[in-house]
Amino acid sequence: MKSSRSAAGVDPTVPAPAVELVGLAAYTELAEFGLLAARSVDAPDLATRQALADGADRALGRQRALLALVSADDGVVPGVVGAAVMAPFDDALTDFDARTDTDDWAEGLLKGVVGHGVAQDFCRVLAGGLDGSSGRAVRQVLERPAPGPEAGADAGADAEAIWLLARLAAADDVLGSRLALWGRRVVGEALGVVTALLGRRPELAALAAESASRSGVDLPPAPDRDDAVRTWLVARLTGEHTRRMDRMRLAA
Amino acid sequence: MKSSRSAAGVDPTVPAPAVELVGLAAYTELAEFGLLAARSVDAPDLATRQALADGADRALGRQRALLALVSADDGVVPGVVGAAVMAPFDDALTDFDARTDTDDWAEGLLKGVVGHGVAQDFCRVLAGGLDGSSGRAVRQVLERPAPGPEAGADAGADAEAIWLLARLAAADDVLGSRLALWGRRVVGEALGVVTALLGRRPELAALAAESASRSGVDLPPAPDRDDAVRTWLVARLTGEHTRRMDRMRLAA
Repeated sequence: MKSSRSAAGVDPTVPAPAVELVGLAAYTELAEFGLLAARSVDAPDLATRQALADGADRALGRQRALLALVSADDGVVPGVVGAAVMAPFDDALTDFDARTDTDDWAEGLLKGVVGHGVAQDFCRVLAGGLDGSSGRAVRQVLERPAPGPEAGADAGADAEAIWLLARLAAADDVLGSRLALWGRRVVGEALGVVTALLGRRPELAALAAESASRSGVDLPPAPDRDDAVRTWLVARLTGEHTRRMDRMRLAA
Repeated sequence: MKSSRSAAGVDPTVPAPAVELVGLAAYTELAEFGLLAARSVDAPDLATRQALADGADRALGRQRALLALVSADDGVVPGVVGAAVMAPFDDALTDFDARTDTDDWAEGLLKGVVGHGVAQDFCRVLAGGLDGSSGRAVRQVLERPAPGPEAGADAGADAEAIWLLARLAAADDVLGSRLALWGRRVVGEALGVVTALLGRRPELAALAAESASRSGVDLPPAPDRDDAVRTWLVARLTGEHTRRMDRMRLAA
């Protein structure tokens, strides 16, 4: 983790696992900005276009709050420290994107909600494994509801997207079934990204194990430990995904 | 203009021409958000992706400041008042978009810089024709440089795009020539949109005439008046466009 710690613009007093997690979470928000913005550009009407643009904007707002946690300089532009801490994750979603490519507007929107939802939940679980004041700071940003049109559980960058999808599915059963099927496919791919990241980034795997053990999970010793962590994590992420699909009245 | 004045969420004390101009300017920022965000999504590298996302974000920030000027309620979400005041302009860029469609990344970026530049300059000229406190407030928002990586003339939503295009053109003469040619085509189409809007929206034509006369232009009486206003406006917008192309080292 030396390379992240000494990267341009990164505060050297922030522990490496926090830098790693902030990089992943910031990358997640930039990806969600792109997905929401793309659906804003080809939205069916002006109100939808505005709503999704506002959601994309909030994704970047959270990204900025995350990057500020690891910036050496208060006045730093996100581009500098952002590129440094996000670089390890730059190709993390390439396969996911290719395997969930769609020309359908509602499917594209749901891809963002499901994929970003899993990614955010993953980051929150990992944050549970961080120590000290930087851990508290990261958890505070990740758990803070972004200001949005709806208060409560949905008030992240995806609030408008969730509301739009729920409305579309309620008005059209055939579309609702298609979206439910699509959601199952996307969540499968998203969980694949999560487990691949755990395999590739030992810092993240260590955070997941620490988070599991702080949650009271009785982990077996190596070599079964990694499998147990992965199983626990996938179960938690799937549970959150099911709640999210329920809020859109889509069968998970 | 009754329809704008009584539209949902719009402050009834704001004069109709100010509501009209704010609607146009807000629509312009939403369009620029979309153009920058789309080029962020397919940017060649992470730093560029972040830079253009930040620019798109600033376009929405300015849009929010504009919509706040005409909102009846301080806590209104942009979607409500935004859709109301932007609706008259919802199809204003359809022809422009179709006629300047391109798959080339740099051309797409330059389309945004040139089109948005002309639109912003147009809005600033029109704001010069507004009376009273609402006129001053609109001018203040339109002339305020957005916070960005570069201070000065370029520090709007397009700051990063301008810098990127200047760098690309400087590194590749063939691309520079192609972009210069493309810029001439885009500015022609953008000026076509402006003159079409003047013909279609009498409130805007009246603002343009008032702005010309406050700038000391000696306008002839009708029926030559409209032509004279149009000629003056096109000359001003072309002049600003030339300066903008110069800053990117592209031949206007």
